[in-house]
Amino acid sequence: MIAKAPYKRIATEEAFATGEQFRLYGKLLDGGYDDPGFLSLWGFYLRSEAERPKRVREMLLDLDDLRIRHMDESGIDVQLLSLTSSGVNPLPADEARALSVSANDEVAAAVARHPTRYAALAAFAPQDPAHAAKEIERAVTKLGLKGAIFNGHTRGEWLDDPKFWAIFEACEALDVPIYLHPTGPHRDLIGPMLERGLDGAVFGFGVDTGLHALRLIVAGLFDRFPKLKLVIGHMGEALPFWYYRLDYMHGVTVRAKRYPTLKPLKRKISDYLRENVYVTTSGMPAPEPIYLCQKVLGMDHVLYAMDYPYQFVADEVAMQDALEISDADKKAFFQTNAERLFKLG
Amino acid sequence: MIAKAPYKRIATEEAFATGEQFRLYGKLLDGGYDDPGFLSLWGFYLRSEAERPKRVREMLLDLDDLRIRHMDESGIDVQLLSLTSSGVNPLPADEARALSVSANDEVAAAVARHPTRYAALAAFAPQDPAHAAKEIERAVTKLGLKGAIFNGHTRGEWLDDPKFWAIFEACEALDVPIYLHPTGPHRDLIGPMLERGLDGAVFGFGVDTGLHALRLIVAGLFDRFPKLKLVIGHMGEALPFWYYRLDYMHGVTVRAKRYPTLKPLKRKISDYLRENVYVTTSGMPAPEPIYLCQKVLGMDHVLYAMDYPYQFVADEVAMQDALEISDADKKAFFQTNAERLFKLG
Repeated sequence: MIAKAPYKRIATEEAFATGEQFRLYGKLLDGGYDDPGFLSLWGFYLRSEAERPKRVREMLLDLDDLRIRHMDESGIDVQLLSLTSSGVNPLPADEARALSVSANDEVAAAVARHPTRYAALAAFAPQDPAHAAKEIERAVTKLGLKGAIFNGHTRGEWLDDPKFWAIFEACEALDVPIYLHPTGPHRDLIGPMLERGLDGAVFGFGVDTGLHALRLIVAGLFDRFPKLKLVIGHMGEALPFWYYRLDYMHGVTVRAKRYPTLKPLKRKISDYLRENVYVTTSGMPAPEPIYLCQKVLGMDHVLYAMDYPYQFVADEVAMQDALEISDADKKAFFQTNAERLFKLG
Repeated sequence: MIAKAPYKRIATEEAFATGEQFRLYGKLLDGGYDDPGFLSLWGFYLRSEAERPKRVREMLLDLDDLRIRHMDESGIDVQLLSLTSSGVNPLPADEARALSVSANDEVAAAVARHPTRYAALAAFAPQDPAHAAKEIERAVTKLGLKGAIFNGHTRGEWLDDPKFWAIFEACEALDVPIYLHPTGPHRDLIGPMLERGLDGAVFGFGVDTGLHALRLIVAGLFDRFPKLKLVIGHMGEALPFWYYRLDYMHGVTVRAKRYPTLKPLKRKISDYLRENVYVTTSGMPAPEPIYLCQKVLGMDHVLYAMDYPYQFVADEVAMQDALEISDADKKAFFQTNAERLFKLG
């Protein structure tokens, strides 16, 4: 049992699933869908009878008593909910559109039932960028959701293709953040990880998601949408650790014109990280990476997250309560950064 | 011009090439060798007439006046030399064996010409593990080299296959470290990086090399060779940043028996990082990742490196002179950690 603190603990990357999502994932698993990252991830979490995946399924599907009890036990005041990865990404367009709408309606209803305990991000279907932009607008303006979330590649496509940019345009216009969450790594990345059981959250998620964020940056996303706010979990998937090398090697490679696809940007990669990117501590409660990100990105760009139910460990809340930062910075970290970024409360 | 300091600056990941290596790489490029990582890396550095690759070629081939002058200008007392990536890795076995021997002889001769300025690591040919183990022994005991180095995958093979373990056995028996250096990412990883010009040192090297190190760890390398010392450049390719998540997710995944290939280890991944792994600052002179690695791995496991000639920037030496650590820790960082690990002087 974690005690109350002189700040609200707002956890910003907390997953739920819907029954319809599990039904559609079951259809994919049974129907020969051949994406190896999806099969590894959901073949395990949806079908394994081991203790961990069984428990995760139960916790994902609950948006009432069990979840609220877990939040009370671990001292979490507010969960910012999002449809669990892989979201609607692996689905055909028609099912993806329908699931994004029904999941947003369901989570909005849960927020209405527990308005002091939940806020939520909107799912959307990149398979249909125009629909996605409209659904984000509906979810934010009609349902009161606080931003949007996507889970890596969509059936093998990266969102740095300009055909997807209506999605980012909508988020910038609505002034809400967009969250880039991991999924099972892309089929053209996963092979050497899968061979050794390293494709999941242990390593592969970080590679796939860090690469996705970097692809968006070097494609010029923030030159095109300079006010866009991108949230990345797991301490920014290590991009803040790499900031110097990213700047140096991107700079010399662009100047040498090594790749026709690699164009000059208006600013350094680390400038976009500092100004457009926010990171959360999901799954990464250790102090050293948190201090690094606070130093590299600034105190106001680092937010608390738990990664419920995949990493539901009360001791990790206590670890972050014990961060050696000022009381004001700790309140920003747990509470006010999230309130400002997601316009909560 | 960087002034002398109250410590020797020993740079521990400094590259050279031999004329024979370039001749053999040229044969690969002309002969239809189809490894996309090699073609991207050496198609550029060997063939481009842009200013950077031309200059890099010239600096790689020099082991006398030009290099010593650059060391003097940038305040480097000693370079620990190694055959530049991709080393002998992309070559057929006969050429790989011959190049490892000739390169070791050439670098030993350079050390003999400049005994106060150079030390060196041994190349070896993983294509022939028995030959590799013998060549490491010859290089260390007969030529006075200080350890061994390999460059990621060898023609697509990762060194976690037990058929390669005679190499690690030799290093442990000789009590010399083995250095894991990046190469162009594996063909089953590189696709989505190459599309956006991100396969090189800017990002892909770190993914491929971090994965290689992690594959070695989860394969049980350090359970089998508990005294083996593995050196990883570029601040450990971010593995120290990920240490908590590596431990947590590896632990829960092993316990759920998710993968038949993923077996329990004797210790946590972070224990091996702290005890068996040493990291160098090649290409990563920024203070925040250095402090993180010093905290996570310990002051005696973090060593200075420049990454000459790929990143020859005198200001970066000054950045690291200015680290906010004690004088004793700074001497350890620049000098005595390297002297102890590589048994220099």
